[in-house]
Amino acid sequence: MKLFRKVAIVGVGLIGGSMGLAIKRKGLAREVVGVSRHKRTLSLAKKARAIDKGSLDLRIIKDADLVILATPVSAIIELAPKISKIISQGCIVTDVGSTKQEIVRRLTKIFPSYIGSHPLAGSEKHSIFYARADIFKNSLCLLTPVKFTDRLALQKVERLWRDLGCRTQFLSPKAHDKVLSFASHLPHALAFALISSVPAECLKFASRGLKDTTRIAASDATLWRDIFLSNRKNVLRAIGILQQDLSRIKSAIAREDNNLLGRILKRAQEKRESL
Amino acid sequence: MKLFRKVAIVGVGLIGGSMGLAIKRKGLAREVVGVSRHKRTLSLAKKARAIDKGSLDLRIIKDADLVILATPVSAIIELAPKISKIISQGCIVTDVGSTKQEIVRRLTKIFPSYIGSHPLAGSEKHSIFYARADIFKNSLCLLTPVKFTDRLALQKVERLWRDLGCRTQFLSPKAHDKVLSFASHLPHALAFALISSVPAECLKFASRGLKDTTRIAASDATLWRDIFLSNRKNVLRAIGILQQDLSRIKSAIAREDNNLLGRILKRAQEKRESL
Repeated sequence: MKLFRKVAIVGVGLIGGSMGLAIKRKGLAREVVGVSRHKRTLSLAKKARAIDKGSLDLRIIKDADLVILATPVSAIIELAPKISKIISQGCIVTDVGSTKQEIVRRLTKIFPSYIGSHPLAGSEKHSIFYARADIFKNSLCLLTPVKFTDRLALQKVERLWRDLGCRTQFLSPKAHDKVLSFASHLPHALAFALISSVPAECLKFASRGLKDTTRIAASDATLWRDIFLSNRKNVLRAIGILQQDLSRIKSAIAREDNNLLGRILKRAQEKRESL
Repeated sequence: MKLFRKVAIVGVGLIGGSMGLAIKRKGLAREVVGVSRHKRTLSLAKKARAIDKGSLDLRIIKDADLVILATPVSAIIELAPKISKIISQGCIVTDVGSTKQEIVRRLTKIFPSYIGSHPLAGSEKHSIFYARADIFKNSLCLLTPVKFTDRLALQKVERLWRDLGCRTQFLSPKAHDKVLSFASHLPHALAFALISSVPAECLKFASRGLKDTTRIAASDATLWRDIFLSNRKNVLRAIGILQQDLSRIKSAIAREDNNLLGRILKRAQEKRESL
């Protein structure tokens, strides 16, 4: 038996599109439908066989037994009440948003069978154009059940992620957002700041170091604006800690403190090598 | 005819070792000798055929017609006077240090035929263990001649880099250090700071973003301490500008200024995409 009858993916970008490809390739659903704001995205998704049918109109998700919200965070929050009016009672809803506290708090109230998901499988690429069925393979998917979470729905969503090739781990929404603020959001904030600060005339001398440290600054600006704002306190705290560490390095350079600077860099080198 | 008779490489690490491998493979010298502080490095370098002979004693460089200084910046400066007492009058000297103002100022006074070089071909890996003949292929080597630079020596050193597969470009030592402070030194300072700021318990959730932004923090701490200190003013200035850009992002998040944050990130995204 198929894991799901009709899967509806709202937002057929890199993650949503890749999920559609993988779900269809692995035969996990009888039907996969997609919703997008752009006709072109839908036709690309259909051509790539990421979805069977697509529509600009949310009503195509009617009768789905799984809805996957794969839009930027603010759109997930905005669309949820509309979606709740269309789907039937038993429909499971999950999302793939990069922050979980705000989303889980809101969506738990709206949907009886809601599970927060976060596959750590993105990249700076966006849009259906870069979707691939195997992006989830060997990656980690964090699930954020809460006290009232429907256990059966949780089992099915966990099973889905495992079938897509992910390891899964449960975290509370609060712990998730704290951990991710360092593991992902801070590096993105920093990459955006770094590329901003490099004078245009220096770009042609970019080392591989500069290219790698700023790769993720090519990520979708709207997506990341949403992430930073919906995990505001944790992101601000993480940036604050980074600012202190950077100031320490700066002041050791300014004071030409050979020993201190050497110690700071050595500790950082060892920490990175352990990663 | 061979480009050089006897090439002496002082510091047989990633760059020095790779140069030895490439010079020998391309037959650019009759003999390549290496100097290191470590016996093990010399035996590895000999085994890898990066050098014909090695010694812990600088006197092995006697009679060389090219000496390549491939140690960290502070050791280049420290060794130069000793080397000048061993080599003969016509010997060409070059270095591969990542900063040029201080090195060129000092070495121009010490050696009659000195050329500053900086191949942009390193990585976070260090030691002879990672040396490869092809690391220079398609990379850029910056040369920093000054008013009194021996033109014949410059031609020969430029020819050497081209034979190793580099494109070459001339920059004044001052322009070099300014450009590199953004193109390479700032990303390194930031990577060291970023990995320092991430709590140990978050490391196991490291996204590919965190891994890529901190890859160069695994670079040799002593090498980078030297680079930061010998390009102190430019590095401090670059860090200062980055701090401003980061503060702007932080304050837009703190004030929940959707539009401003979106604009800053969008501009950064476009700049990175143009790279």
